[in-house]
Amino acid sequence: MKFSVIVEVTGLDGIADPEGQTIERALPALGFEGVEHVRVGKVVRFDLEAHDEDAARATSEELCRRLLANPVIEQAEVSLAPAGQAR
Amino acid sequence: MKFSVIVEVTGLDGIADPEGQTIERALPALGFEGVEHVRVGKVVRFDLEAHDEDAARATSEELCRRLLANPVIEQAEVSLAPAGQAR
Repeated sequence: MKFSVIVEVTGLDGIADPEGQTIERALPALGFEGVEHVRVGKVVRFDLEAHDEDAARATSEELCRRLLANPVIEQAEVSLAPAGQAR
Repeated sequence: MKFSVIVEVTGLDGIADPEGQTIERALPALGFEGVEHVRVGKVVRFDLEAHDEDAARATSEELCRRLLANPVIEQAEVSLAPAGQAR
């Protein structure tokens, strides 16, 4: 069975996010008001062949631990759906 | 009214994605099988004060056009919800 997986990797709370801060500082000069708490992260999408949804989730989470995220400074959130179904 | 906005910026189809290709090539050596079509993008989350949902979406999309995404090589997808409601 094929799954579409989306992994969102963001900095842990308390970890500096210079890209987000830079965006936030740039906004008033562009005329945008009322935007705050800008945080920038990474998103990884892939297709995964797995037996069932539990297996797909387990594989995706191991993938995060071993390759996609650095658990010292980042958290990873996995969401998945059978391929072909939009999130 | 406060909205939680999530913007996902990914390369347009046909634009090279070296980070995704590198992840995909690394996976077999780590023992992961059945993973394909890896694409890496950027995710920007922020809080936005706006009159209603239409206004929040319009502001977010203008923000993408003017700052967050480069429309020549990237597409941006906005999803938003009233603050406090999980996506």
